[in-house]
Formats: sequence, structure tokens, C-alpha cells
Amino acid sequence: MSTRTTDAEGAPGREDDAPGPLERRGGPGNAPAIDAEGTLTRRSMLVTAGATLTGGTLLLSGSAARAQSPVPGACGPRESSAADCGQQYARQDWLRPGMPRRDYRPVVVPNGSKLPWKVVNNVKVFHLVAEEVGHEFAPGLKASCWGYNGRVHGPTIEAVEGDRVRIYVTNRLPAATTVHWHGLLLPSGMDGVGGLSQKSIAPGETFRYEFTLRQASTNMYHSHHDEMTQIGLGMTGMFIIHPRRPVGPRVDRDFVILLHEWRIDVGTERPNPNEMTDFNVLTMNAKAFPGTEPLVVRQGERVRIRLGNLSPQNHHPIHLHGFHFRITETDGGRVPESAQQPEGTVLVPVGSTRVIEFVADVPGDWALHCHMTHHMMNQMGHEFPNMIGVKPGGLDAKVRTLLPGYMTMGQTGMAEMGEMGMPIPPNSIPMLGAQGKHDYITAGGMFTVLKVRERLESYADPGWYDNPPGTLAVAATSDELRRDGIDVNAPAVVDPGAPA
Amino acid sequence: MSTRTTDAEGAPGREDDAPGPLERRGGPGNAPAIDAEGTLTRRSMLVTAGATLTGGTLLLSGSAARAQSPVPGACGPRESSAADCGQQYARQDWLRPGMPRRDYRPVVVPNGSKLPWKVVNNVKVFHLVAEEVGHEFAPGLKASCWGYNGRVHGPTIEAVEGDRVRIYVTNRLPAATTVHWHGLLLPSGMDGVGGLSQKSIAPGETFRYEFTLRQASTNMYHSHHDEMTQIGLGMTGMFIIHPRRPVGPRVDRDFVILLHEWRIDVGTERPNPNEMTDFNVLTMNAKAFPGTEPLVVRQGERVRIRLGNLSPQNHHPIHLHGFHFRITETDGGRVPESAQQPEGTVLVPVGSTRVIEFVADVPGDWALHCHMTHHMMNQMGHEFPNMIGVKPGGLDAKVRTLLPGYMTMGQTGMAEMGEMGMPIPPNSIPMLGAQGKHDYITAGGMFTVLKVRERLESYADPGWYDNPPGTLAVAATSDELRRDGIDVNAPAVVDPGAPA
Amino acid sequence: MSTRTTDAEGAPGREDDAPGPLERRGGPGNAPAIDAEGTLTRRSMLVTAGATLTGGTLLLSGSAARAQSPVPGACGPRESSAADCGQQYARQDWLRPGMPRRDYRPVVVPNGSKLPWKVVNNVKVFHLVAEEVGHEFAPGLKASCWGYNGRVHGPTIEAVEGDRVRIYVTNRLPAATTVHWHGLLLPSGMDGVGGLSQKSIAPGETFRYEFTLRQASTNMYHSHHDEMTQIGLGMTGMFIIHPRRPVGPRVDRDFVILLHEWRIDVGTERPNPNEMTDFNVLTMNAKAFPGTEPLVVRQGERVRIRLGNLSPQNHHPIHLHGFHFRITETDGGRVPESAQQPEGTVLVPVGSTRVIEFVADVPGDWALHCHMTHHMMNQMGHEFPNMIGVKPGGLDAKVRTLLPGYMTMGQTGMAEMGEMGMPIPPNSIPMLGAQGKHDYITAGGMFTVLKVRERLESYADPGWYDNPPGTLAVAATSDELRRDGIDVNAPAVVDPGAPA
Repeated sequence: MSTRTTDAEGAPGREDDAPGPLERRGGPGNAPAIDAEGTLTRRSMLVTAGATLTGGTLLLSGSAARAQSPVPGACGPRESSAADCGQQYARQDWLRPGMPRRDYRPVVVPNGSKLPWKVVNNVKVFHLVAEEVGHEFAPGLKASCWGYNGRVHGPTIEAVEGDRVRIYVTNRLPAATTVHWHGLLLPSGMDGVGGLSQKSIAPGETFRYEFTLRQASTNMYHSHHDEMTQIGLGMTGMFIIHPRRPVGPRVDRDFVILLHEWRIDVGTERPNPNEMTDFNVLTMNAKAFPGTEPLVVRQGERVRIRLGNLSPQNHHPIHLHGFHFRITETDGGRVPESAQQPEGTVLVPVGSTRVIEFVADVPGDWALHCHMTHHMMNQMGHEFPNMIGVKPGGLDAKVRTLLPGYMTMGQTGMAEMGEMGMPIPPNSIPMLGAQGKHDYITAGGMFTVLKVRERLESYADPGWYDNPPGTLAVAATSDELRRDGIDVNAPAVVDPGAPA
Repeated sequence: MSTRTTDAEGAPGREDDAPGPLERRGGPGNAPAIDAEGTLTRRSMLVTAGATLTGGTLLLSGSAARAQSPVPGACGPRESSAADCGQQYARQDWLRPGMPRRDYRPVVVPNGSKLPWKVVNNVKVFHLVAEEVGHEFAPGLKASCWGYNGRVHGPTIEAVEGDRVRIYVTNRLPAATTVHWHGLLLPSGMDGVGGLSQKSIAPGETFRYEFTLRQASTNMYHSHHDEMTQIGLGMTGMFIIHPRRPVGPRVDRDFVILLHEWRIDVGTERPNPNEMTDFNVLTMNAKAFPGTEPLVVRQGERVRIRLGNLSPQNHHPIHLHGFHFRITETDGGRVPESAQQPEGTVLVPVGSTRVIEFVADVPGDWALHCHMTHHMMNQMGHEFPNMIGVKPGGLDAKVRTLLPGYMTMGQTGMAEMGEMGMPIPPNSIPMLGAQGKHDYITAGGMFTVLKVRERLESYADPGWYDNPPGTLAVAATSDELRRDGIDVNAPAVVDPGAPA
Repeated sequence: MSTRTTDAEGAPGREDDAPGPLERRGGPGNAPAIDAEGTLTRRSMLVTAGATLTGGTLLLSGSAARAQSPVPGACGPRESSAADCGQQYARQDWLRPGMPRRDYRPVVVPNGSKLPWKVVNNVKVFHLVAEEVGHEFAPGLKASCWGYNGRVHGPTIEAVEGDRVRIYVTNRLPAATTVHWHGLLLPSGMDGVGGLSQKSIAPGETFRYEFTLRQASTNMYHSHHDEMTQIGLGMTGMFIIHPRRPVGPRVDRDFVILLHEWRIDVGTERPNPNEMTDFNVLTMNAKAFPGTEPLVVRQGERVRIRLGNLSPQNHHPIHLHGFHFRITETDGGRVPESAQQPEGTVLVPVGSTRVIEFVADVPGDWALHCHMTHHMMNQMGHEFPNMIGVKPGGLDAKVRTLLPGYMTMGQTGMAEMGEMGMPIPPNSIPMLGAQGKHDYITAGGMFTVLKVRERLESYADPGWYDNPPGTLAVAATSDELRRDGIDVNAPAVVDPGAPA
């Protein structure tokens, strides 16, 4: 069989992708892989395909479905019989490569990238390069991180249930590393735990990982060697496996966001991976607001957001304004409909993925952010001394005789510091903020905006939302106050906390 | 139409509340809003009412249910037709105001308060005043916080699905602010994110928020401007929306508790909102034990506890003694019965609500507290040096020649310090504790007591529980020890951890 | 009735355990406790048995099922009638003691132990001794902790739904203590909250706790007096209650793991219970890797892992490699099948239990660990200064003239420090690691290994897994690289993050 190579950059868009050799397996000479009802029979699944094609729970799948042919083209140790093994269609336990648009709707990775691939002998081939990466977290803050293929975090890997993938990992770092395919069901020796599963990949070496994707789910990949250091420096990425056949309601927009937290001291150029509690740069796809790209959606579209969290230490509660949603997937796969939780804020634990789905039924600009207040703050906020309520009095004038331009700040909070353009050290970002449509937005860090519009020409950033008349919170008029009997100067009152 | 005003202080108790103009909308001249089966037809819901009246998931509701008339009395942009728009009953997309007792059983807010309201033209009108508030966390500890209407946290807002609410927010703080209605489904311009959704409310200004309540759920409100500072200083509250029609089993007692965490250094008078990890005052409805009011319940009653968490950083695991419960609601709405989780401890993530329900089938005094051990501790506990096992020997006597009254403390833990009345600095609270019925209770912070009684005259604190004979853990008698063959002096033994 | 004593060490293995007096309650003279369908009738449950025998939710059980006879042999206050009360079979509201193998398959506690018991008058009698315990966390790190019966954590208590248990607690500590039975449904006076439920147990005293087990679930026990100190020093344990009749699929291996976190400064011998955020010894059953025993399983077996978390402050996300699982139980009892969540990582909140179940369908060595990166690290890791990228240049040679043997470390991470055997202070453990099969395993702390084997002689540690040919990640050959068109020296590339 000759090598058939499909360039990944070219291929994903092609609808006319020619059938490969495997595609012909189901022809007249072979038992059909799909029965009359359009579902795979158990026998055909084991013998011909091997993949679990259901979006239901994988816990019910027997060990046969987890069989992994040790080498391509060879007869695996767990084929059902020697006779089967001799037949051509039994030589591989995977399906023809799933193709974008034909087999799945590609995900969108705001601020991110994807790992290219090509097809060789019906196997999708990827090349991941672990290396030092200069990365900009937000305009004004750069640091030297560790990532993959010039990106922090690594590019998203996107594949399809039933695909065979071969991933070469080249180590260009000064330290040994490995890659763990977090959430994937695969042979023990492909699991990527340094020392336990495999020899670690020394600097300069290239390792080969290869396995068949037995599941459809939202997964991650990351170093599993000296994790505190290597994850702390950014060596993480997402690994999306689409179902071979659609599961659940059709989704129109499918976003991928990987959460992380960093300690980058003001004035330094390298994250400190030894920090355990005081993180000061909080990111979505490695960007801190205002560096985060908005998520753009047409009104009425069904939206999926796949959240992964490989932060070192914090479980992030991600709050979506304006919508309720359901949690439809975890890193254990699709949540059965009966068990799906409704939420407005989804807690994404460390080492977990959570997928949320909702219909974007109302237009607007909607915040999507971690609700931990220090995680909506950039570098310097939470280390500032408490100045609330301090009255500088004549102090400022006196100090200015010594320090020209001195001004006591923070007596009423942090907002003024971002807003007033307080002088900040080189290579740092203000505590919070960016100019919004209506005012200065006093938020930073793990914060982005979902933009829902009635009409869209493209999914490019449509700018700020135009509020229809009467739907915007504004200063009350004196007529309104009079009509409603509100005296803004009267002492404010409350009722008792229990009914009388 | 003349202004019809109902005084909120007076109204909530009235059962005989006269029907308002809206109530007549369903009269002979109009299509009935409710069909023969007593359920709203889809058409009547869209045209006449607009509110989702189901307690089921709101994700299924189309965009029509989210339509928000821009201004009262005007024709909204999403009415189904111009003809409909011209009819009187289409002029408002909300229901007549829901009334306490008639339409809902009011919640109980231990240590808390509620925001008064009045009805103007069938709209419930509230007035929230952001201001500095002197607050006592527990006897002996006061601080200057930021809150609403003289309270920390703000008074609970209580309303009903289908209500139209108009909330005036007056800013008496020295900094700009906004209010975000956390979990509410509303127009983008009413969402309260400073800069993104609206102009921030400058000191001295009064803004008007107005929207129809499209849901029944347990929500919150808080500043969304410089959140680290303003939430850290206490600018949060609960926003309860009762269903228009009952959902689930009838609840007899319905409590609301908002969790928070603060850093108040001993001897200071102002919480430090910049603190990120070392919180030392942990509160339920802004009170630390022993400042917390008990939750009083009659045996056999069905109890709901609505927990909200707007702590800056910690997800609090709230443990209820003596009962298992189900989690029936999140900030995304009612959890379908099939998906409800049984629990003994509910994790309430930051920026989330969790509602638990159970039948109080066994009388007693039952602790309800955060299980993080440092969150059951008041101000000074966790910063104390480790003295466990230290043998002072003759040290104390020697030190006393220099420091009269000196005594080494903490060699066996913290209990003695609360219990012995260790001298503490002014304006501070001991590490833990209060005198209980049986002994000193060595707990503080986020801790309260659920008191279940067979008989109650009222829901006032009934005092401590009287244990029936034989149901109290007491010192073993020598007869019992002899009968059971227990030698209290023998070396203690264990079995292996795996069966032989 | 004469005292009938069964020695616990002897009894658990016996299959021929003679029926006790209670077993005869269902004889000809009494109404049968079990009806024709093999299920307990409601009447027999109340009158004869009293226990809830269903694995379904306990929320549905009425207060009758929670009735607790105050003293053995006496007539309880809530018997259904005085007539019933006069009959012999009504004198006890519990079942004959459940026996290992006959009534349940015993759990396995890696690195742990179980609390022995004996039967006296059909009551299971236990003796728990609170005392100071010298404990080894991992080879090379010992400390003085507080535990029970010479163990840290305390031995696992294992019993059966419907059992009556009498637990004597002797206090040999220098401080008062209590025991709270976390998650158990029992009388208020047996709940163990010092001061609130009972008088605290003074040093030297022995208290008696006694109650009937009304539930089947995974629970815990711990001090509820000065919890910050006493839990922080290790006074915790697991309390497993098996169902009287099987619930759910049969489980072959049933493991118990209790999570904890400690602060033990290098060079000290006592954990610091006052530490609130910077924990540096992270444990499973009080052992840090490489001190943790593996979980050994035969391929195809159904595995249950019961996780409890009584760490002072952190919710630990426990990640299992190689498998997806379902969360089948919380400390509120069995999760209904419809509500079970699929997961690859289970978040175990503080003060909670989480039970996971899966079929071990694929052989191998699979990591099971907390995913917080600092929790896979031993004592010193996260306090190390950030040396990433530092180029020592000629510095080392210069310093060596002053400090022989000096070597700058950490420029490429932490792995080398464990691996190279960096000199460490006495009584401390390296940052991470142990030698594995393939290489040095750069992990420590809350980390263990699930070993699944096709064939096992016993459940003793089978050593490392032998990877079948072709299933191990290894260095790529030049033939492979050529065939797949991989240039390991070319600049690494990515695709855009959104489809074109």
C-alpha cells in the first residue's frame, strides 16, 4: 500500500475528499459495517471498526472496544479470531480519518491555534514541538514561557472518534518532558506519565505516540513530567474529539477555552512556576483581558463552550452573563440528558473539562469571566496596601515637595488606577481595565465578552452592542423619581428579614 | 391610568389585596390567558403574558419568552404583529405583581433584612442605596463596610416570576459603582457591568434599572465595578424570585444565607479588600459565630436553605449535621428531579447559588457550617505560631518575673483560648467559641445552628435542645465497660486494612 | 439473655457465623420481616426492623425510619403503639449484626487499617482511642501527629446498615476532644459537636456513643472540638456502612482513600495545624508518594474507590488515568442512576465523600492523583526560588571555591533534584519522585498507582507493568519520520484557531 499524504492545511476545507482505502472496506466483498437500521452491529464494530460510535456513556463499553492494535497493519493481540485476523479489513481497528465539515464542524479557539495534520496510510499524523515561547498575555505584558509549536498554550488538537492518530513529540526544551493525553482511553504505554508509562523524552529527542480514538469528548494534553514546573510554565493544550456521528442538538458555534493562572512578578520576564497561592496573571487561552478576543455569535444560534482548566491550583467558577446553560460534558464524556445540571456559573475544577451549551436568544454584550474577584484583576491589584477610606488631607501636597507628581491612590478602590492611566512599570499591565462603550471597564484577567447580534456579516468582532431605546440603565429623571415617589436623599430603609 | 401605589411595608401581609388593572386583562373582552386545563397556552403566553410560568428548565424557552418591552406602555420591538401591538393587553409583557402569602411564602433571612417595595402602575418599585455602613460581625467586632440601605450585605430582594421590577440605585459612596443582577435573564443594557453594559453610576447619581422577571430562581446582586474592592467590602445581596405557580413539594421554612469572607486585621476598622488568600472573618449573612442567629424549624417541616456565595475567593463546602438533603436549585434554575444530587455537604462555588431541601424529621441542635477548618475559626486562629506539644517547663515562671501574668498557650490547641477568656485586643473576636448547653463550643466563623423541635410556640430561638434520656454521649460507666469487655488502659489495636 | 461475645479479629472471616437471638425474631411466632417478594413490608420495617433497607434515597424515609431507641432493651419513645412496645421483638430497633462475606464484601484500605469490633448482645462494640501517634508519611519523613489507636488517620470503621453500634472513645490526648460521625443519621446527642451536642471528652475520660445505622453510605469520623487543631493534626477516619442487601452492580474491589494535607516544615517533627494556605505534605491515607501502596486489580473487575476529604482547606480534584468513571455516591448517599455524572477527574470537596465506579477493562499502570500541581510535590518544591532559565555561567566554579560541591539547581525545573539525589536535610522528603520502570517518576504527594493485570496470583503488588510490543511511546525511528514526512528540525507550525 503506497503512502497517501494529505496536507492538513489544505485538506480540512475540502468537501470532495476522495475516499481512502479504508472507505472501501464496507464494499460488496465485505460484511457491511452498518446494519439496516443504520446502526453498527456489535460484530461489525468489533471486527470492522472497533470504535465506540455512541455518544452515550463509555462505561458500558466492553474491553473489546478498548482494544488497540499495537502497530499499524499488524494483527493485534485481541482480534476475535485468527481467521478474522487474516482478512484485510481486520488489519486495522480504526475508521477512515474524519474530515472537517464532512464529519464535523470545526471548533473555534479564540486567541488560539490548532495543530496541523496530514493523513498517511489512513492515520492522522501530527507533530508537536515542545519549546520555549515568547508570549504576550495582554498588550504590554510579555514573558518567556514553555509551550508547543511557538504557542502558549499549545495548539488545539482536533480529531474524530474512530481516527487513528500518530503524534510525534519533539523536545526542544532544556529539560526532559512527556505528553499526557488527559482523558483519553488508550494503552498504558501511551499515557505519557514520565517514568511510570514511558521513558521521559530527553532534550533533542522525538518520541512517537500512536493510538486510536475510542471516544468523543473534550480532553486536554499536558506535560506529565515535573508538572509543577512544566504546567506552570504553560505546557498545556486542548484535545477535542468529535463524535463520528452527531450527538445531541446541532451546535452552531463551538468554542474552546483553556484556563490558566500564572505568577509573573512586575518587572520579570518569566513566570514563576513555584508559586502556589498568589497568582497574578489569570488567563483564558493564555490571554488576560483586555487581551482576550470576544466570542461572536448570531442571535438564535446554539452555542457550545468547552472549558478546560490546567491551572496549577485553582478551580475557576466561570460565570456567563445573560444566559442559563446546561453542563453537557465533563472529561468523562457526555453527561446523560437526565443528569445535566442547569447553571449560570460553571465550576471548572483543576484537571477537568466542562462543556456548556445554550441558545443565544438575546442580543447584547455579555461578560464571561471567573467570578473570583482577584481573578478579574491584573498584576498588581491584590498586593496593594489597603487605602480604603484614607483621607490624604494635606499629605499629598507635602509629599509632592519631595516626590513631584505624588498622589495618594486607592482610597476609593482600584478603578481609578486603570482608568486614570496611572504610570506603571515597564512590561506590566494595569490592575484592571479597558475602555468600553459606555465607560471604563474595571475588569482584567480571566474575563472576555460574548457578543450576540441579530445580524452578522461575519464572525469578526462586530464592535460594541447598540442598546435599543429604553433597555439601558441610565440616570433616573426627576419625573420618574416623582412618579415613583423616590426621595434620593431620604434615609434608606429595609424590612425585617423574616415575615411578621 | 392613574398611579396606584401600594406601600410595601403594609402590603406584604395583606391577604385581601385588591386586584389591579392588569388582573382584568383576562376578562371577557380578551382571549383568556389561561386555558381550560389551567395552563397557559403558548399563544397566550407570548401575546398576553410573556413570562415563563414553568419551573422546568428555562433553556427550552424560545427567544419570545425573553422579550423585554423597552419602556412601559410602549410597543416592544418583538411583538408578534403590529395588530397585536395595537391591542391594550399587548402593551405590557408582564403579570400583575405577585403578592406575599397570596402568591408565595416569604423567605426568612437570618440576621438579615429585605428591600421594601411599592407598586406603581403594576410595577414593583425598589430603592437601593449604596453607602458606607458600620457593621457588627459578632459581639465585639465592628467595621466600616460598604453595603446597601444601611445593611451589610444588602437587603434581600424578593419578587415573583412575571413581575415587572423597577430598581432605583442611588450611589452615596465616594466611588462609582453599578449593580449586576447575577443570574437574571434581562436586556444587555440592564446587566450592570460597568463600562460594558452601562455608564457607571457616579457618586451622588441615581440610576434606574427596569426589567421583567422571566424566571423563578435564587439569584444575587452585587457591584460589577471594581469588584475586588466593592465585593470585598460587602456590596452584595440576594435576589429571590418565587415561581408564579408552585414548583416541587411545598416548603414550610425557606431560609436565605449569603456567604462571605473578609480580612479584618486585629485592631483595624476596615476590611482589606486587597487580601487574596488569608481571610480571617468568615460569615453567613455577614455574621460570624456566635453572632449568627439559629434557623428554627418544627419537626416534620420541609426546609429549604438557599445558599449564595459572593466571597471573593473561596468555594465553601457547607455541611449540615443530622440530615441528608438534595440540591434542588442552582443559579441556573431548578434542577430537574432526575438530576438532583443527594448530599450531606454542599459545595457552593464563588458566584453561585445552591438550594438544598430536606425534611427536618429528627429534633435536635444541628450544626450548619463551612467544613474548611480555618473557616470555623475567628480572627486570630490560623496565624498563631505552632505551639503543639511545647513543654513550657519553668519558662512561664521565669517570664512572669518580667511579664506578670504571662502564660504559654496553645500547646494543646486553640480551645482553651476561647474558653478561658484569654485577654484579646479591643475590637476583635476570640479565635473560636461560645458557651453551649453542654460545654464551650469551640467553633467560630461560618457556623450556625439548625434547631429542630417537636413543639414550637413561635419561630423565636427556643434555647438549647433537651436530649431525651439515653440519647446523649456521656462518660461510660464501669458496668458498661465491664459488660463490653473494654479495658481503657490496654494498648489500642487495629485490624489490617485489607481482608485476609 | 447472656452476653454473647464474638472476637472481631476472629469473626470477620467466618462464613458459618451462628444465627444470634435476633435472627429468630422472624420465626413462626412473629410476623415475618420479609414478605413473599423478598422485600420488607413497611409494617415489618417499622415494627420488627426499623432500618431502611433500600439503597435509594434516604430523603424519602419518614421519621419512623430515623427512630432511635434511647437505650438497648428499653421501649423507645416513638414505637407505633404501647402494645407493640410490650412485645419482645419491639425491644430493639436494629437488625442482627451484619457479617463480612455473608452480608458484605469488606473494603480495602491501602496503607491503612480497620477498627476491630466484637458483638455483645447483638450490638457491635468498638473502642476508639484518641492519642498521639508517631507516623511516617513516606520513607524519610516522620512526625508526631494526633490519631486513633496508634494510627494516622484512625482505622476505618466498617459496618452494615441496620447494625447497632456502640463506640467507646477513650481520650489519651492532653486536650479535650469529641468524635463527630460525619454523614450519619443519628440522635442529636450522639452527633459529637463539642459543647453543642455533648460535653467534650476530657483527657483520661472514656465516652460511649451508641446508635443504629439507618443508612448505607460512605462516611467519615473526626474530632469536632477545636477542629482546626485536631483535624489539622490528623484526627480523622472513614466510616463505611455497607447496604444490608446489595445495591447496584456487584463490585469486585472496593478501596477506601482518605485525603489530607499538612504543613510540616523541613526539620520539624510536628505538623503545624495553624497553617491555612501553604500545605507541603499531601497525602492519601496519610502517605505521600512514593510511600503510597498501589491499588491492585484484575482486568475486567468492577472497581469502587471511596474517596473522603478531611483536608483542612483544599478541595482535591482526583484524576484517574486510563478510565472514565461514574460518581455513584456522595456523603448524602447513593446517587440515583439518572443523576450519576461521568468523570475522569472527581472533585472531592472538603468535608465530603465521593465514590467512583468503573470496570478496569484495560491492563496497565495508571496514575491516580490530585491534579493540583503543587499537590503532586513533596515538601520543598513550591517554596524554591524561581531559577528557570538562569544561566549559572562561571558562577558555580567561583562559588565552589567558597562552598565545595556548590551547584546552581532548578534552571530547568525540579525533576533533577529528586532524580540526582540532591542532598536533603534530615527528616524530609525530596520534592518529588521515585524510580519507576521506565525512568524516574517526577511526582510526589497525593499520588498513587492503580495496577490492572490480566492475571494475578494475589492482590500483592505485582511490580511494574510489561507493555506489549508496540504499545509503548518510544523514540521515533528515522524510517518512521521519513515515511510520515516529519522534519524534526523544521520550524514548528500551527493552523489558525478558527476555520477559514
